[in-house]
Order: sequence, then C-alpha cells, then structure tokens
Amino acid sequence: MQLTRVSMLSGKPPGWRRAILDSLYLAMRETFNVPEDDRFMTITEHERDDFVYGADYLGIARSDDLVMIQITVSNTRGVAQKQALFARIAERLAQSPGLRKEDVLINLVETLPENWSFGSGLAQYVEKSG
Amino acid sequence: MQLTRVSMLSGKPPGWRRAILDSLYLAMRETFNVPEDDRFMTITEHERDDFVYGADYLGIARSDDLVMIQITVSNTRGVAQKQALFARIAERLAQSPGLRKEDVLINLVETLPENWSFGSGLAQYVEKSG
Amino acid sequence: MQLTRVSMLSGKPPGWRRAILDSLYLAMRETFNVPEDDRFMTITEHERDDFVYGADYLGIARSDDLVMIQITVSNTRGVAQKQALFARIAERLAQSPGLRKEDVLINLVETLPENWSFGSGLAQYVEKSG
Repeated sequence: MQLTRVSMLSGKPPGWRRAILDSLYLAMRETFNVPEDDRFMTITEHERDDFVYGADYLGIARSDDLVMIQITVSNTRGVAQKQALFARIAERLAQSPGLRKEDVLINLVETLPENWSFGSGLAQYVEKSG
Repeated sequence: MQLTRVSMLSGKPPGWRRAILDSLYLAMRETFNVPEDDRFMTITEHERDDFVYGADYLGIARSDDLVMIQITVSNTRGVAQKQALFARIAERLAQSPGLRKEDVLINLVETLPENWSFGSGLAQYVEKSG
Repeated sequence: MQLTRVSMLSGKPPGWRRAILDSLYLAMRETFNVPEDDRFMTITEHERDDFVYGADYLGIARSDDLVMIQITVSNTRGVAQKQALFARIAERLAQSPGLRKEDVLINLVETLPENWSFGSGLAQYVEKSG
C-alpha cells in the first residue's frame, strides 16, 4: 500500500541506488506496518540542470547527494507514526548507502485505501473490507 | 482532468509504450467520464536497479512487464466507479499491448477541481462553475 | 513546503530547462508565500512515444513545448491564491524561457503540513507548531 518515487542526481553506482530502495523498504516495514513484499519503488536520475534544491532551507545543509523521496500511501497513519517513519528512513539511509541525514527529503502523499489496484483489475483494499 | 504517470522497466519498443497510453486513455473515457482529448500522460522508463517491485504481494504473480500507473484526478468519483476503472484498465492493457492483468498496478491520487490549470494561467474548473 | 515535478519532451537546451525552474520558483515566491530557498524541483524529459498530450483540450492550442507541472504543497491555500499562482506561473514562463501560455499545464497535489521531512529525519512543520 505504498508507491515510492526517489529523485536524485545521476552518477551514483547501481549498488548505491539499490541500497537506497532497500533501506526505504526496511524503514517502512519497521514503522509503517508495511507488509512483507509490499514494495513498489522507482528511482529517477536527473542531470544537473533538471534537479534543483535549496541548499540551506530551514538551516539544513544539503549536498548533491540529496534524495527527494515521495511516498504515496493510504491515509491510515497519525502524526507520531509519520515522525517515526521519517526518523527511521534517515537512520537507515545513513547506515546504507551512507547518506548524510541532511540529504534526505521526504514527502508523503495520502490517498484513500480504495484508490489502489495491485493487479488483476481489482481494488484489493475494497474487496478485503467489504 | 487527469495527469497520468506510468513507470516501467526500459527496453520495450515505442509501439508497446504508445499502446499502453492509448489503452489507458480509452479505459478512462469508458469508465471515468474523461472528456475527449483530455489526455496528459507520460511514461518514465527505468533501469533495473531503479525499479523494484514485490513479485508476489497479495498473491499476485508479477513479471518484469509490470507497469506502475499513477493517475492524478479530481475527487469526483465514488468507489464503484474506481473499481470499474481498474477493471477496464486491466482489460484494455490485456488487449493492447498484451499485458498480463497481474502486471497492472494502479494508484489514484485525488485533488480538488480547483487544483488544475490546463493552460493560459487559468483555473478552468473554477471559472466554469463560478 | 513544495516539491515540483516538470515533465516535458526532451530536446531543449539546459538554459531553457533551468529558466523553467527559476521562473516557477519566482512565481511561487510571489503568490504562494514560499520562503526563500524553499525550492525542490525536478524536470523529467521524455521521448515522443512517452509523452502524450491533448492538443486542443478545452479549446487551448498546445504545442510540443508543453510543460506538465505537478506541484505538491501543503493544503494551506484557498482558491484565489491558487488562481494567482497559476496566472503568475504562466506570466513568468512566458517571460523566461518564453513559453506560450497555452503550453503551461499545472496540477496541485495537496498534503498535510505534517507530511514533510526536509532533512535530518524530522517533521519540521510538526515541531514548529508543537
């Protein structure tokens, strides 16, 4: 019940990028009740002129390693759970691939559970509760 | 009143990709009251390390043909209409370009009608109802 | 408190693309109370078969210069402010890089202020108001 899009500057090796997606998945498992194998994630790499960031917004010193993470999820979590997710994502990405926590930007987009079809043309979260 | 983003692994020929967008448009026309010519759609192709999916989540067997479809629409449809959209998208994509229905993941992001400008700097859906 | 994604056909020079992001930032500063240095923006360039648009939807004549702009923001603005943003974006992009106003499509996705982490694993807009 999540769709994750990561945007970053191009130039990082495949192992770095794969580690980002693995760490994001683990952080969601640990804090957001994401079931096993519920991982649908993409990275888009951008050239420098296609990727702009505020280097000091809110007093946080960002670098070209910055990842912009947009996670679309169902609207079933409260503030404390979101704070736990943000903290755990930053910790996990600091461990692997070794991002600075300042270089982790996260945005959640929330949707209704009925807004998902995970295959076969069905709205799985409607059928389950109906 | 829709903006559609498709993410998939790279390597499919142009005709395959164009067929995906054509079928999506037809399914929206048939089930979601999308007006003629209301089609604003992109595909982003990803390298393998930038595209990760749960191969069996919810018991659905997915393959590398998987398409992750995120459709931003105004919040004017109910559950039954969303279910009809999901079913029709899967049917249309099975017909052309020939996707397995298990390889069709769909997520709707809903916004207010006032959140769109279709050109010329105007909020067309505000002016229409005002 | 915004994350901006621009989709366009590939082939424009870096200066054109950078001007789009600069103009978007200025328009948001002028009409949407976006703080200085709050700019997190990407452009994704698409091949022709991966970028489809309604050339005349709502009677607006679009060209291959079309930019599809999706801005995720906190849900703190009213209709008039959104209309001002749309108008200013079209004006700014007409000035630089010189887009026709018909070629500017904008969609806002609104989220809760608590749905953002701008770095260091914190939900900055929760802590600020808490």
